[in-house]
Amino acid sequence: MADKNGRGASRTEIRLAGEGGQGMILAGIVLAEAAAIYDDKNAIQTQSYGPEARGGASKSEVILSEGEIDYPKVISPDVLVVMSQEACDKYASSLKKNGLLIVDEEKVGRVPTSRAVKVPITRLALEASGKAITANVVALGVLVGLTQIVSRQAIEKAVTARAPKGTQDMNRAALLAGFAAAERLSGRQAPETSVPA
Amino acid sequence: MADKNGRGASRTEIRLAGEGGQGMILAGIVLAEAAAIYDDKNAIQTQSYGPEARGGASKSEVILSEGEIDYPKVISPDVLVVMSQEACDKYASSLKKNGLLIVDEEKVGRVPTSRAVKVPITRLALEASGKAITANVVALGVLVGLTQIVSRQAIEKAVTARAPKGTQDMNRAALLAGFAAAERLSGRQAPETSVPA
Repeated sequence: MADKNGRGASRTEIRLAGEGGQGMILAGIVLAEAAAIYDDKNAIQTQSYGPEARGGASKSEVILSEGEIDYPKVISPDVLVVMSQEACDKYASSLKKNGLLIVDEEKVGRVPTSRAVKVPITRLALEASGKAITANVVALGVLVGLTQIVSRQAIEKAVTARAPKGTQDMNRAALLAGFAAAERLSGRQAPETSVPA
Repeated sequence: MADKNGRGASRTEIRLAGEGGQGMILAGIVLAEAAAIYDDKNAIQTQSYGPEARGGASKSEVILSEGEIDYPKVISPDVLVVMSQEACDKYASSLKKNGLLIVDEEKVGRVPTSRAVKVPITRLALEASGKAITANVVALGVLVGLTQIVSRQAIEKAVTARAPKGTQDMNRAALLAGFAAAERLSGRQAPETSVPA
């Protein structure tokens, strides 16, 4: 089933936005690979660079679908993750009505809706892995934990496959910290181990 | 000016295809960033994952344009780089008439046209940098050297910006090896230093 824009009912649009160097592009690739390689969905992952590319902002878009993806651009995201104030200011209004806005609460002071999900993503990355650079993986953990758009097993495999040699454990720790934050937000108790080994 | 498909006259479509692990996705990102961040063009970089994603094949697509890019999918590439026989068999027929086909000649034995540009990309990577993993950067050097779709300065900056810490020189050597191969193919003499320092 598709709507008048040719979008299938199962289509989910995700936009990940932040500053250059925060790994938003890699996060998009990992999410798309989780869906396509490990969860048997179709996925398209896109970066569009316009004049804003010279400003240091970075965004990555992923479309997931059970069926074929006919229109490859994000129209209005179902899920938006913003890791900087600039990204929030720029993209929050594009979010679908009742869409999910996830913000790094220590990076984004002004949020345009009371419905945003605020998580100290970069701080959790530091605490869980010792490295702020894993914030993109924490963000994926929060996103997947809250939405289940891909399975936890799939995202964990995709993160591990893309992690540079010697950083697999660090990245896995960051992912689990994201899952745990999502569980706290959902009001469920985080079990000691949230993903089957 | 745009044709009946809404494609601007300056639009260039590039497809980079090979096996997983050859870095074709990163090559696409680097090429898009060279164009958008350092050369002031617009760029879209896309990965589409369908059922074939489970087969280990990997492809990355880049669209470059002086103007706005309205349709974000590659329709028929102007330039196709193939780093595996499977990729060549699968995508060679999609190439635009008179398009440029660049193949890693040690990976691709059967080429469907006599007009293909054959370069020992992976061997050059090993010789120039000591690491076969830089083959994706050699491929970018050949592509940019032959087509000038982005400036040499821009691709060098983009490669350097994306190279993991401690591998900048290795990646720069791979890029220059690609430039030099392109110069030999163009019948021009490779100068000792092909890019201004």
